[in-house]
Amino acid sequence: MMNDKIPEYLIIDVDGVMTTGQFLYSVEGKEYKVFGPHDNDGIKLIRNHIKIVFVTADKRGFPISHKRIVDDMHHELFLVSEGDRLSYIDSTFGLEQSAYIGDGFYDAPILKKCLCGIAPSNARVEARNAADFVTDSKSGEGAVLDACLYLINRYFGGVEIQ
Amino acid sequence: MMNDKIPEYLIIDVDGVMTTGQFLYSVEGKEYKVFGPHDNDGIKLIRNHIKIVFVTADKRGFPISHKRIVDDMHHELFLVSEGDRLSYIDSTFGLEQSAYIGDGFYDAPILKKCLCGIAPSNARVEARNAADFVTDSKSGEGAVLDACLYLINRYFGGVEIQ
Amino acid sequence: MMNDKIPEYLIIDVDGVMTTGQFLYSVEGKEYKVFGPHDNDGIKLIRNHIKIVFVTADKRGFPISHKRIVDDMHHELFLVSEGDRLSYIDSTFGLEQSAYIGDGFYDAPILKKCLCGIAPSNARVEARNAADFVTDSKSGEGAVLDACLYLINRYFGGVEIQ
Amino acid sequence: MMNDKIPEYLIIDVDGVMTTGQFLYSVEGKEYKVFGPHDNDGIKLIRNHIKIVFVTADKRGFPISHKRIVDDMHHELFLVSEGDRLSYIDSTFGLEQSAYIGDGFYDAPILKKCLCGIAPSNARVEARNAADFVTDSKSGEGAVLDACLYLINRYFGGVEIQ
Repeated sequence: MMNDKIPEYLIIDVDGVMTTGQFLYSVEGKEYKVFGPHDNDGIKLIRNHIKIVFVTADKRGFPISHKRIVDDMHHELFLVSEGDRLSYIDSTFGLEQSAYIGDGFYDAPILKKCLCGIAPSNARVEARNAADFVTDSKSGEGAVLDACLYLINRYFGGVEIQ
Repeated sequence: MMNDKIPEYLIIDVDGVMTTGQFLYSVEGKEYKVFGPHDNDGIKLIRNHIKIVFVTADKRGFPISHKRIVDDMHHELFLVSEGDRLSYIDSTFGLEQSAYIGDGFYDAPILKKCLCGIAPSNARVEARNAADFVTDSKSGEGAVLDACLYLINRYFGGVEIQ
Repeated sequence: MMNDKIPEYLIIDVDGVMTTGQFLYSVEGKEYKVFGPHDNDGIKLIRNHIKIVFVTADKRGFPISHKRIVDDMHHELFLVSEGDRLSYIDSTFGLEQSAYIGDGFYDAPILKKCLCGIAPSNARVEARNAADFVTDSKSGEGAVLDACLYLINRYFGGVEIQ
Repeated sequence: MMNDKIPEYLIIDVDGVMTTGQFLYSVEGKEYKVFGPHDNDGIKLIRNHIKIVFVTADKRGFPISHKRIVDDMHHELFLVSEGDRLSYIDSTFGLEQSAYIGDGFYDAPILKKCLCGIAPSNARVEARNAADFVTDSKSGEGAVLDACLYLINRYFGGVEIQ
């Protein structure tokens, strides 16, 4: 049966959720991340229903994620290590008030304990097993649009298409 | 049964149709899009039968698409937002005169209302469900050649191979 | 039954055979091609048995292919358009003396007419249908090693592994 | 039945194990390799149990691998050609003391002769057939985390998740 409580926050992990998880290295270090289509359409559909925040544990690639999420998409992005993420989310937003999209080994306990946990189809098996919903799409191929449509249908009365 | 009316325009969405849909971000922003093989072969096969135009909703990546489509492939490219695309196509080319290849959530109504709607195999489910034809190939892996061969076989008497 | 005649030339298309077929575009144009692992191992295994030459139809990306194939791998590379390729190969090397690895729509007649035609598993359907052998691996993921092992087993007495 | 002897070394091939195996070429040559998510999580989980070293046969791309493995991940990296790798590992670390993760044609004999051989799911068939364990994930998509979890479960008493 569906949970009646409606999440106040949608917390989205960047790497492996908004990106394919892969990064391009040159002799200069980590230079590129691979973002995909469709996800921004989903974020636009849901942003009036829920407060959206992004988290990342990638210190070295933080400037790249910042450029995309903060400068270009105008959302908030927090740098939180994997080990601190569960307690950070709980103390800052409240696990019980949050929907969370994550893909990694250390996301599994967050996905299990938050109000609504979602994992991309190519997430770690530990994350997929802990999630309430696994998207049809892979990360970097529309997983976040899938997640947004799921949340809109579950909590916010569905989407009206033209 | 096949539609007897022959399209005058072939309108091709760039991102997710001519490209994989993915883009590479650095600290400088969106820098690369991933185009694939085969599609130019398809465009050369059909260009004497139909007027080809390209559309994109990607403002930030427009200079990249312009370099590929206009400077290097010598086709017309129009920047039209997703929300305006249906009415833009209808008023400029006429939906009833147009074949359209698109992959996104907002392409679904266009694909449904145009004369012949085509979606790559990795398009959003909403686009695939709205299309007359779904290609065997993914975008960036020959979807546009598939689409051109389909249109040539359906409307223009088929292809002669050596 | 196996063909008794042994090919003198192994002609390898670059794009979509040695690469994934995809290329990265920036505002500066075509900048990167994606090569893969394993293929050089195959070329080293077969190079004492057969004369290897590479062909490409990609004018704009020729300097990239040249850097990889000629400068770094020390093989010959010829720029030949798709339309001219069949007659070029026949007049220069002889189709009946050549094994050919190709992936495109216009490679189909060459694959059919050469002594031994090979297509990567992700080649165009027209190329796969025309080939004597379709590799297990995709291009950019070891298709050329697969092809070399096939040729060594068929014509050159097999490979001895340690 | 499980082998009772516990490996002292975990030797990890870089290309095709820590990366997708693919590399991006420009007119300047080999410029980028594609690393993936999750693997560093696995290395952190196992590094207190076993001595970890990396090997690569890629001379031309060595500075890129060095940047990632040595400068950024703070591990040891050895440049050893494919032909020398088996004897190098045996004389330096001892095959009987080593777990090895490799993906290539020339890794097959090492995988067979070492204490515990592991291949990513997209490794060459020769490597997969020679390995004790084939990961669920592809290289560049978490194969090394899979391998580390396997080794921890087999030799080091399993992982405790929160």
